[in-house]
Amino acid sequence: MKASASEMVSTLSTLLPGRVSTAERHQLEYARDLWPRGLIEIAFGALPKQRPEAVVWPLTTEEVVEVVRIARRHRRPVVPFGAGSGVCGGAVPIHGGLVVDLKRMSRVLQIDEEVGSASFEAGILGERLENELSRNKLTLGHFPSSIMCSTLGGWLATRSAGQYSTKYGKIEDLVEAVTFVDGRGEIHQVGRLTRPDVLQLIVGSEGTLGIITQATLRVERQPELEWLRAWRFSSVEVGLEAIRGLLQANLRPAVVRLYDELDSFLHKNDARASESANETSRVGRESFSSEYWLNLLRPTGRARGRLPDLRRLGIAAALLRPSVTHFVTSTLLSHFQPGCLLIIGFEGEDSLTRAESDDASSILRLAGGIDLGEEPAARWKAHRYDTSFHMPKIFEAGAFVDTMEVATTWDKLPKLYRTVRRALSRLAFVMAHFSHAYPDGCSIYFTFAARAATQREAEQRYDELWSAAMEATNEAGAALSHHHGVGLLKAPFMEKEHGRSGMEILRALKATFDPDYILNPGKLGLCAPLSLMRYRSLALLTHG
Amino acid sequence: MKASASEMVSTLSTLLPGRVSTAERHQLEYARDLWPRGLIEIAFGALPKQRPEAVVWPLTTEEVVEVVRIARRHRRPVVPFGAGSGVCGGAVPIHGGLVVDLKRMSRVLQIDEEVGSASFEAGILGERLENELSRNKLTLGHFPSSIMCSTLGGWLATRSAGQYSTKYGKIEDLVEAVTFVDGRGEIHQVGRLTRPDVLQLIVGSEGTLGIITQATLRVERQPELEWLRAWRFSSVEVGLEAIRGLLQANLRPAVVRLYDELDSFLHKNDARASESANETSRVGRESFSSEYWLNLLRPTGRARGRLPDLRRLGIAAALLRPSVTHFVTSTLLSHFQPGCLLIIGFEGEDSLTRAESDDASSILRLAGGIDLGEEPAARWKAHRYDTSFHMPKIFEAGAFVDTMEVATTWDKLPKLYRTVRRALSRLAFVMAHFSHAYPDGCSIYFTFAARAATQREAEQRYDELWSAAMEATNEAGAALSHHHGVGLLKAPFMEKEHGRSGMEILRALKATFDPDYILNPGKLGLCAPLSLMRYRSLALLTHG
Repeated sequence: MKASASEMVSTLSTLLPGRVSTAERHQLEYARDLWPRGLIEIAFGALPKQRPEAVVWPLTTEEVVEVVRIARRHRRPVVPFGAGSGVCGGAVPIHGGLVVDLKRMSRVLQIDEEVGSASFEAGILGERLENELSRNKLTLGHFPSSIMCSTLGGWLATRSAGQYSTKYGKIEDLVEAVTFVDGRGEIHQVGRLTRPDVLQLIVGSEGTLGIITQATLRVERQPELEWLRAWRFSSVEVGLEAIRGLLQANLRPAVVRLYDELDSFLHKNDARASESANETSRVGRESFSSEYWLNLLRPTGRARGRLPDLRRLGIAAALLRPSVTHFVTSTLLSHFQPGCLLIIGFEGEDSLTRAESDDASSILRLAGGIDLGEEPAARWKAHRYDTSFHMPKIFEAGAFVDTMEVATTWDKLPKLYRTVRRALSRLAFVMAHFSHAYPDGCSIYFTFAARAATQREAEQRYDELWSAAMEATNEAGAALSHHHGVGLLKAPFMEKEHGRSGMEILRALKATFDPDYILNPGKLGLCAPLSLMRYRSLALLTHG
Repeated sequence: MKASASEMVSTLSTLLPGRVSTAERHQLEYARDLWPRGLIEIAFGALPKQRPEAVVWPLTTEEVVEVVRIARRHRRPVVPFGAGSGVCGGAVPIHGGLVVDLKRMSRVLQIDEEVGSASFEAGILGERLENELSRNKLTLGHFPSSIMCSTLGGWLATRSAGQYSTKYGKIEDLVEAVTFVDGRGEIHQVGRLTRPDVLQLIVGSEGTLGIITQATLRVERQPELEWLRAWRFSSVEVGLEAIRGLLQANLRPAVVRLYDELDSFLHKNDARASESANETSRVGRESFSSEYWLNLLRPTGRARGRLPDLRRLGIAAALLRPSVTHFVTSTLLSHFQPGCLLIIGFEGEDSLTRAESDDASSILRLAGGIDLGEEPAARWKAHRYDTSFHMPKIFEAGAFVDTMEVATTWDKLPKLYRTVRRALSRLAFVMAHFSHAYPDGCSIYFTFAARAATQREAEQRYDELWSAAMEATNEAGAALSHHHGVGLLKAPFMEKEHGRSGMEILRALKATFDPDYILNPGKLGLCAPLSLMRYRSLALLTHG
């Protein structure tokens, strides 16, 4: 540690006694988030290329102010950290410095049923936040699959979407006000009613403009009735037309997810396997489709006990030759014709929800859908938070997996799906589902997995995959991220997506709020040297 | 005209032959918008204190670029102008310069039913925009009372709300992308999917960061069914509780408007008068409540022919002594107990709308409401666009009238209503309605009128009214504007409302996009000298 850094740490230790650590254990733990490129390193036993000099745990907004001021005096980076489940490297301290873990700032500040709003400190975990609201018969309606390992501050920093965003909106629609500390150690409070809307610039700024310490959210009464069903459609195209029809008839399902043929096929097999296992309760025990399939790669776990090792080996082999696999699965799918599975749910006031679900059922039937009943939908719901917990285990097994959520308008959606899948299929095993539907368009969530013998090969393939996918997305005129954020992963594509205007606005704000560029440098493309680099160079910089 | 300005005009004339005017007629016409303080001047026959050097009518975004570059070269202000119906002075060229009238840029660029989006040039009038969509069986769902005399660009520049905003959202919720020209003559295109959301900074920037030339909007299918009813509640408080209950039960009426006792009382008298006149059709012939009452002040018109001059004189007298009037009307109201009128409507897909209106009716009945049927609601609808057209005529009669739309959360709403009404009642005749309701709160729309013998007295009273109302609003912790914008009127209060953070962000953007401060200087509080002034000083500056 440099002299200046060690001086900084000792100042911090006086300020936050017992809440500053330079222990190697902590430096390693906070060197990464759930960005798959970092998980590849872990899987191959490599140490991180970067690590923070210290981790601090403030308890109040005022302590965050002091931490930022001390760091600024020493010109060291400050990286805000929630629960570390981001998948784009947004919380990776690539230039060292301080990691500010906000999880000890997790108080419920106020729950106001009359207004329909609730205020929390930013470090509260999603699941606890929702539980606190439940006690008052309220809900935020925000259910990302990471809900057990992500914080309110992380949601806001990345413009997170929950699985029910079609009804409730994304976190940027739910936030009423935030308190944040900028890079000069000044406290700001911004609310929704400002004209123009500055709140929306802080939401999604990924720690580059300020550290969010508190927020007020719009909350609703818990639904009286929940209606959740599965349907089958003959193809992705037919299913998408049905969803568009639904949304444009002004129906607002809470959840709507259409799985492509491969994902649907694996789901079907999953259900069959669990039937043959003759378990007392299928619901709540089986993991679901892509999650299930990821399970197959795990060296231990429920899936292994039940399935022939041959199949596991087959899939492992498939990952090594994705183009062959793609051909084989296409042939299989055209033989079995599993169709596409749709999970759809409405919730809210009793009679209204009945009317909505009746209307939706008519529309889906007219569009060629077949009602599969409640059971497959209930199985999805029981496993809807599994993904974040499975991911690291896949890596332990020597494969890697990542997910990509792009979005576009309805007219461009089928082409986006085909283009990106084709680009990814050459290099990985790919499946997808369509979720987060809106009247004007929808997001596509790709899951792709590959295997490589060495770390170097894995990283190379990983980078090729993302370059190919991002280029395909850009060609299709779609948005590079719907809700995972930008972080390091997509920083090199920011300028291409936002154009000059967007980046100019961001840089003007950066210069105002963080004149010394100490806040989470290198993220959002907001670091001078990085903004000039191409993706490959960034990868080299951060990962050697 | 200065030498530099006349040189600029001759350069412009070469660029836009026949589309540049320095005629006095144009200079006077474009010297004001519908800001009531300017209308007071007109009523007393005073010339405007400021006027533009020239008015230009560009046809394309590229021509706007050229105009801005020429103006910048000569360091002259550029003020974008739509249909001039703004009520806050946002389009008043207080420092002279060029007025850029965008109304000749009014093309329909694209209507895409599949995506549910439509693109227009910014100068298109609201009514035509909606008509163009109607031809395709689509609607924007945006119906400000100014729809016949406001443009898309004006809506976006001011964050406009339509009467159906509870269902469809405000214009900032409906916009998908905008094209604008900044103060350096650069073209920018920003869309909704940028992270963070820069689009929302341009929307509401009132011409201070750029001139909006095109926009893409989300559109919907026209509703299958429209349900519109009137209800009566015993008091404002009871009515508000009913609306909150409705919204928080997740019902989304298209329109919901609750009139206070005075406004409701005048409406009742209006209906009675029209009955006794024994007209063949009451609906569509009578003006409604506050609009009707404003009619009484007009020296000519339907109202005069039918009503005793004594009553007109009485009201004229009432305006001179508002505190006495307030006492008298309170006494009258407590005697007549007219209650409060609620207009509520649902629209959309047939069976869903039926379910929603059934639910709403149950909630309203439980909350103590009495169903008044369709007729009073239909009367409201027939006259919903009248206000903008009546206003100037009131001024011709020597009185002045203004409206003020503040907003806050449900818990603070009754107090805000009482506080602001009390502050205004000392100086003017006041009535109010509550509209634009959301799950977390609602807007209050005050209409206030007063009379004065001289221009000086009228302006003095006008300024006192706004100072008192803004202070009361600020004390109540509410937002100073829901949808009319900031303009000149509220510029001095911007810093108080937005705090340091908000203004810092705005100034950083201003420095980036308009380094020479030529775009609509003095608006939004974004002019160095003005931002330091109090309201009174501003009034002196702009109006002598």
